[in-house]
Amino acid sequence: MRIDIITCVPAIFNGMVDQSILKRAGDKGLAQIHIHDLRDYAVNKHNQIDDYAFGGGAGMVLMIEPIDKCIANLKSERSYDEVIYMSPDGEQLSQGMANELSLNKNIIMLCGHYKGVDERVREHLITREISIGDYVLTGGELAAAVVADSIVRLLPGVMNDETSALTDSFQDDLIAPPVYTRPAQYNNWSVPEVLTSGHQAKIEEWRFNQQVKRTKEKRPDLLKNKESKD
Amino acid sequence: MRIDIITCVPAIFNGMVDQSILKRAGDKGLAQIHIHDLRDYAVNKHNQIDDYAFGGGAGMVLMIEPIDKCIANLKSERSYDEVIYMSPDGEQLSQGMANELSLNKNIIMLCGHYKGVDERVREHLITREISIGDYVLTGGELAAAVVADSIVRLLPGVMNDETSALTDSFQDDLIAPPVYTRPAQYNNWSVPEVLTSGHQAKIEEWRFNQQVKRTKEKRPDLLKNKESKD
Repeated sequence: MRIDIITCVPAIFNGMVDQSILKRAGDKGLAQIHIHDLRDYAVNKHNQIDDYAFGGGAGMVLMIEPIDKCIANLKSERSYDEVIYMSPDGEQLSQGMANELSLNKNIIMLCGHYKGVDERVREHLITREISIGDYVLTGGELAAAVVADSIVRLLPGVMNDETSALTDSFQDDLIAPPVYTRPAQYNNWSVPEVLTSGHQAKIEEWRFNQQVKRTKEKRPDLLKNKESKD
Repeated sequence: MRIDIITCVPAIFNGMVDQSILKRAGDKGLAQIHIHDLRDYAVNKHNQIDDYAFGGGAGMVLMIEPIDKCIANLKSERSYDEVIYMSPDGEQLSQGMANELSLNKNIIMLCGHYKGVDERVREHLITREISIGDYVLTGGELAAAVVADSIVRLLPGVMNDETSALTDSFQDDLIAPPVYTRPAQYNNWSVPEVLTSGHQAKIEEWRFNQQVKRTKEKRPDLLKNKESKD
């Protein structure tokens, strides 16, 4: 899988691409993340990529021309399944959407910044708009990193233990069970006895019961989803 | 405001803390972000911070002792309003929660990684659990960065133009209106005439109508919130 991220603040991605799961996926040849600096496609000698909004108002707007040039350049080299714009009013990211996106071969993610992008970009150049939640961020960069992480970790072979992703929260509409590790006693706080019993069937039963209990307490809406699917 | 982030992958934050709004807020003396490496609080000479889960199963679990030592060390220096654990089953981040969190003086954010943290951390050391959405990430680092960005940009003086944050999506339960910038014509795609008319009252009316129209189309749930408040 290949993910091309277009941004006007490429350095934000330094740590993420060099560390994290994105790096591991890259080293294994399972995913390539390419960061593109919008300024490389600036329209004039002042390296301009943004301008004031027509009609006035606070905040700068990213211009269409550098974005169009960058996307066209990428599309001239390969075909893309999606050109995604990160926007707080887009379709909300879910685990199901991450599963679906992880089946793509090549995707572009465009990060807005400041007040956003010229609306004509959204009308003519974008195939899908995604939001990571109902809150506003300074730019789309962190949102794009979140989407990339949620997708890439699902690619077969990226995580060391394939079963690990399958037991995550949301994959089965249940919240993950509590986990404990050594020491068994700490500050008089102890681990539930069943977990150190060695009785695997009882452990699995306890975990499943904990999942159902926690989901009922914290996210009863997920349990309704599950019942309607089962 | 001071935000202390505890992580086992501190380098992920390199670009974010050096660039982005977090850097700008730091330079202005309005927010300080401190990244703490959990390995500095490792329990033995092998620098151990994680171990296998009691009861078996895939994935490593972050141990309680390094986390407890790190939090205790921070608390010995100042008092904290919240010790937040980033978790997909926590309370969901919203713009309202970001507003509320931005009123705090000192907060700690603990990032899980691998399979999560020993449950006793959540029971005894954490005051609040926050999720950024219904999807699973490799660790809490990106989630903590998202929360930090959503909070810090709201601090008075961080953004260049105070009115900019006030006109964002969600602040008034309406999606932001479309924005356009130069050129007025591009590929025969033109800017709505009203925006270049110079008639400010008409522009404001058009923008408000666009906000209502878009919110109806994309997020009718927000409009219901708004009506019940108005």
